[in-house]
Amino acid sequence: MTSSVINFAEKLTQLNEYWSPRVLAELNDYQFKVAKVQGEFVWHSHADTDEAFIVLEGQLLIEMREKSVVLNKGELFVVPKGVEHRPIAESECHLLLIEPKGVVNTGETQSELTAAMDQWL
Amino acid sequence: MTSSVINFAEKLTQLNEYWSPRVLAELNDYQFKVAKVQGEFVWHSHADTDEAFIVLEGQLLIEMREKSVVLNKGELFVVPKGVEHRPIAESECHLLLIEPKGVVNTGETQSELTAAMDQWL
Repeated sequence: MTSSVINFAEKLTQLNEYWSPRVLAELNDYQFKVAKVQGEFVWHSHADTDEAFIVLEGQLLIEMREKSVVLNKGELFVVPKGVEHRPIAESECHLLLIEPKGVVNTGETQSELTAAMDQWL
Repeated sequence: MTSSVINFAEKLTQLNEYWSPRVLAELNDYQFKVAKVQGEFVWHSHADTDEAFIVLEGQLLIEMREKSVVLNKGELFVVPKGVEHRPIAESECHLLLIEPKGVVNTGETQSELTAAMDQWL
């Protein structure tokens, strides 16, 4: 058994790059990732999967074509699969992401913000 | 699109029963559930799935046969599939659970603590 207790705040102190999700743990074929974000991300969607955002610190705006939502600390939003979205954080924001292994952060969109997959913290 | 922003603390004010997980949201075929717990749960395991615990408030001890872990607020632990475990909370503790749809809270163990599945909050 290799599982250990993960403290989000402590892990986040080791991450100094925006929009670069890092894997903390796996749950079957899903991954828990943390990310620090600030500024505007790119419009993208994930054709094959929903994507869960939990705000650990700060505030996140998720723009979608039909509506936008604002998430504060302690809040969860699931972007349904196929729904175009663009995360925006006015100030630094810390996120917990839950999604299947192999999900690219920019989905179907190629961008300079496209991060390498499966980077662990 | 039916997805909405979920505030964990607000949802938890609506839950007044211990050891009775309530579904908040779905992510593909997985569910996010909250639970209030206090006291000792039963030893059990889930043969087919890992199970993720995140402590939202308080402290949780997870006893396992090989070792035990203590989770504080803002901490995650994934119990690997098949591993017998017993959650214990000395004082009231608020949990976020992530696991596939259809998981029974007491796993393979029949108990008076076995909760109905798929109860939403």
